[in-house]
Amino acid sequence: MPSIPSLANIATRLRIDSVRSTSEAGSGHPTTCLSAAEIVAALFFAEMRYDPRDPQRADNDRFVLSKGHAAPILYAAWAEAGLFPREDLLKLRKIDSDLEGHPTPRLPFVDVATGSLGQGLCAGVGIALNARRIGSAHRTYVLLGDGESAEGAVWEAAQMASFFGLDSLCGITDVNGLGQSRATAFGHDLGPLETRWRAFGWHAIAVDGHDLGQVLAALDAARHTAGRPTMILARTLKGKGVSFIEGKEGWHGKPLKKADEMPRALAELEAQLLAGADVPVAPRLPDGPAPTPDPSTREPLPAPAYAIGDQVATREAYGAALLKLGRADRRVVALDADVKNSTYSEKFEQAFPDRFFQSFIAEQTMIGAAMGLASRGAIPFPSTFACFLTRAYDFLRMAGISRLDVKVAGSHAGVSIGEDGPSQMALEDLAMMRAVPDCTVIYPCDGVSTERLLALMADTPGPAYMRTSRPKTPVIYGPDETFAIGGCKVLRRGDRDVATVVGAGVTVFEALKAHDALAREGVTIRVIDLYSLQPVDAETLVRAGREAGPIITVEDHYPEGGLGDAVAGAVGPHGIPVHRLAVREIPRSGSPEELLDRFGISAARIVSAVDELIAGRSGGRSRA
Amino acid sequence: MPSIPSLANIATRLRIDSVRSTSEAGSGHPTTCLSAAEIVAALFFAEMRYDPRDPQRADNDRFVLSKGHAAPILYAAWAEAGLFPREDLLKLRKIDSDLEGHPTPRLPFVDVATGSLGQGLCAGVGIALNARRIGSAHRTYVLLGDGESAEGAVWEAAQMASFFGLDSLCGITDVNGLGQSRATAFGHDLGPLETRWRAFGWHAIAVDGHDLGQVLAALDAARHTAGRPTMILARTLKGKGVSFIEGKEGWHGKPLKKADEMPRALAELEAQLLAGADVPVAPRLPDGPAPTPDPSTREPLPAPAYAIGDQVATREAYGAALLKLGRADRRVVALDADVKNSTYSEKFEQAFPDRFFQSFIAEQTMIGAAMGLASRGAIPFPSTFACFLTRAYDFLRMAGISRLDVKVAGSHAGVSIGEDGPSQMALEDLAMMRAVPDCTVIYPCDGVSTERLLALMADTPGPAYMRTSRPKTPVIYGPDETFAIGGCKVLRRGDRDVATVVGAGVTVFEALKAHDALAREGVTIRVIDLYSLQPVDAETLVRAGREAGPIITVEDHYPEGGLGDAVAGAVGPHGIPVHRLAVREIPRSGSPEELLDRFGISAARIVSAVDELIAGRSGGRSRA
Repeated sequence: MPSIPSLANIATRLRIDSVRSTSEAGSGHPTTCLSAAEIVAALFFAEMRYDPRDPQRADNDRFVLSKGHAAPILYAAWAEAGLFPREDLLKLRKIDSDLEGHPTPRLPFVDVATGSLGQGLCAGVGIALNARRIGSAHRTYVLLGDGESAEGAVWEAAQMASFFGLDSLCGITDVNGLGQSRATAFGHDLGPLETRWRAFGWHAIAVDGHDLGQVLAALDAARHTAGRPTMILARTLKGKGVSFIEGKEGWHGKPLKKADEMPRALAELEAQLLAGADVPVAPRLPDGPAPTPDPSTREPLPAPAYAIGDQVATREAYGAALLKLGRADRRVVALDADVKNSTYSEKFEQAFPDRFFQSFIAEQTMIGAAMGLASRGAIPFPSTFACFLTRAYDFLRMAGISRLDVKVAGSHAGVSIGEDGPSQMALEDLAMMRAVPDCTVIYPCDGVSTERLLALMADTPGPAYMRTSRPKTPVIYGPDETFAIGGCKVLRRGDRDVATVVGAGVTVFEALKAHDALAREGVTIRVIDLYSLQPVDAETLVRAGREAGPIITVEDHYPEGGLGDAVAGAVGPHGIPVHRLAVREIPRSGSPEELLDRFGISAARIVSAVDELIAGRSGGRSRA
Repeated sequence: MPSIPSLANIATRLRIDSVRSTSEAGSGHPTTCLSAAEIVAALFFAEMRYDPRDPQRADNDRFVLSKGHAAPILYAAWAEAGLFPREDLLKLRKIDSDLEGHPTPRLPFVDVATGSLGQGLCAGVGIALNARRIGSAHRTYVLLGDGESAEGAVWEAAQMASFFGLDSLCGITDVNGLGQSRATAFGHDLGPLETRWRAFGWHAIAVDGHDLGQVLAALDAARHTAGRPTMILARTLKGKGVSFIEGKEGWHGKPLKKADEMPRALAELEAQLLAGADVPVAPRLPDGPAPTPDPSTREPLPAPAYAIGDQVATREAYGAALLKLGRADRRVVALDADVKNSTYSEKFEQAFPDRFFQSFIAEQTMIGAAMGLASRGAIPFPSTFACFLTRAYDFLRMAGISRLDVKVAGSHAGVSIGEDGPSQMALEDLAMMRAVPDCTVIYPCDGVSTERLLALMADTPGPAYMRTSRPKTPVIYGPDETFAIGGCKVLRRGDRDVATVVGAGVTVFEALKAHDALAREGVTIRVIDLYSLQPVDAETLVRAGREAGPIITVEDHYPEGGLGDAVAGAVGPHGIPVHRLAVREIPRSGSPEELLDRFGISAARIVSAVDELIAGRSGGRSRA
């Protein structure tokens, strides 16, 4: 154990680096770093076991900076640990540096991007669950701010961590009492926070966050606490160590002016360095048993067992496919928010209870824990009703920024769910997920495509989303049909097609019905199953538009951001007309068939749309 | 006070109605209703003061069914109270009935749509805050499920309610111990819930939820509790009163079969009716002082005080405009999630501290409370960084379904924020908000348009979103310029325009710079400020596309769901080519100018895009 004076000097150097790098950048949050210096010094140079030359080593203790705006002190700690030269810190926030304003996994020591507050503990839950999965004794530390403790997601994580008895998880709340724009609700009163953490089943310890002895003792107590996680509540001063900003409001997110304020601050800080205390302090390497390495590939999957014409809901096919995938790849885990019997993820739970994580009705921590799991090598499949994924959009956004292999499934898409009404109908999920950067978006229409695409989702790096439907639909693809991320299927094609109808999911069947109805009157249309909405098969769509345009898109989704927009984006530069059938008003309860028709996406509505195009083109009302 | 036997009979009748209506519908959640029957009977027929013939009366006590899947018993209560005939209950979930699967404000007694769990208490906070605003003594009751208490939003609301000392707010948690797919985390153990509510500053009372005496006593205790809200934790049995489903798993969301199960259940329930207890029970009318009526219109606003060329960030103009609006209309209130000094909503707080509500860093309850406020006549303006609105997307979705006048503002849009990096950059907010049904989406580029459009937002029914930017931009509109929801401005137009460039916000200025650069080489482009993204001025866009096509869209947003998609949706049927400049990869820290260029949306990139179009058209590389 390093001496307290030597740790104190490290804390002071971290302060110096934080002040200097933010002043050099001309922006950033030095005061937020200064309050946390003793905590970070104690964690990185006394408590945590890790290899500073190999931040991704599987048995390293993990650290999540939930208060991501304290990034400069995180970077300073890794420089102090020797990962990169200290002078690199002065590249903070520059366009050619990965030392960004808030941490992202562009840096090898960052598991999940932070900076949207209240997410780090959810990720920490996932990382701690993953330690169990791989049989590692590593511990997981999360540094939170007191301000962000107002986020409900923090309490979702608190509940999930205590439910799973995650004693390898240790949170530290830097209670500096000041938010961005004002004092926090409780300021420096640790009482309400202590009471809350205890009420949520945690071991809570209150300390003076600038007293290294107290911080170290609390970390030690956390390490010796069995069966429940620990939260250390550390009373601190924002701006600690620099007299003219210490504990003062109005200094959030403000660097010290390089010309005058910075030199004054640095002089004060340098005066705090203790003479003779600078014995070299190196992080301790992990010393637990080596965890089980994950496989890097998976066993081939057997072909789907469906026969053409079988009636199966894609949500049900999802559950069956997830089970198969889980058998072939032990990296695959599943998470649920108490709808496993509707999404059919319960099939996975029954087979792999140890790889199934129940968050109860708490979608943010479900996705957040999935982020943590994915960051450490698992391939998590969190699922719920698609509409309730909106609850976790900020997490999905950050999963995208983190480029994590979080494979999300949303069931009960669209008005085709029927009687439950608009609150249960996802009609914006495609808009939401298409706008997650580099997110694969898949929307299968039958059992075979669901199963094949699920495996492809698992194998494609980065976040992915599969939209499934509630009603049973007929299997239309044979078991050997091949699919591709970024592909589509031209299901009907003729030499004299008058239009191309592009659907996905339930609307594929409406398009096929419309095709047959029109064909009976001598009119043929091209029909495309656009099962991959992102990436999208622009080439096939443009060809269809040229050969058999205009294009009519049909989707069980609002017109904004979904299939219609994906198609328009693909063919837009080519001037191919795109007409859209979509749900254009707030829907209501009713039977699925009634709703598809009433809200404009039934076969009859497609036929009408084709009729109108023909009439417009010929100038009259007759077909063919 | 009605007798307990007469209330017990009401509870039994509510059970009968809930069973019958769901069996008739063939779907729904009877067991969820049965557990709550005594609670609902006590609330509606002993505790609450309201006019059953005028559900919207301003001084009625309010009731929010947070566990929205118990809708049938809510409908049964209002039928019992005499608002509509009991036989209407059998229209439950039919397409021609407003008695939907989950409650929506299509019904006059529903303030906010529920059915996405964990939202009702947030709305209740807003309704209780509104009671203060209008000087009403009415109380607000929220019925929650124990399962939904896992949602973080519940704890955000808990914190906000205790912060504001909302003693007129009373929650009742129906602790039936069973979620949808399994037992809840604590089953029937009220201890952990009691401890949590107390830790969050509430008065918590544990009762047997089927003992009317205990329920009434707890409601009475809540009414006499000053300075803090009360949560009544009621231990109940899911399916109570029907022996073969009572307390059993596997009955969530399942109606009793009409042929056999329903008659058995009804026979059991009818046998529970107490003879001689059916004295008529009528709700008590409100008896407090009449609240101050809200004005139905507002005073005219003075013209903007900016001069052309002034440098002002739209976020700052937003703050100034909100202050002016607040002066002219006392229905206007503002909410913040601890960024008031960045969004400039602090200007409003300084002038109207009583109409400013701080949620701290808790965006869900900020929007949820705004929903409650809007449902009772306020015009709330919640604001935060646009990216953090993703945290509240499920609430925004439900605000849309509820058609509430929630006027949201998101600042710090796009890469133009600069050094803080991707976690702080909203690049999906337009996709998110365009997909909120009937939501107005506004994106002003200068101070004058911000101010004018804010007033129009306030006057336009339904939800609205204004996107503002961090950097200062020059004022380009005179103080008398007029704007319209659904309008746009053609800023540059020539007879020989080779393309139309459509921007909004910061990209308007990039387009103008590109125009000038091209003009110096003899090439003219049309430039449009598309300040209204939803609704969108399709007519002007189509005309521009025909006269000066192709169209190039430029947006500080990902390509999905934003300005490009809005334009493509408008011109799509007409086959006008649309090319898009947007942020096509995960951005990073850097200066705003560097980032605009690096991520493809600078003036130089617009010039290149126009050049490419010209080259493509002429087959060569030369311009003009």
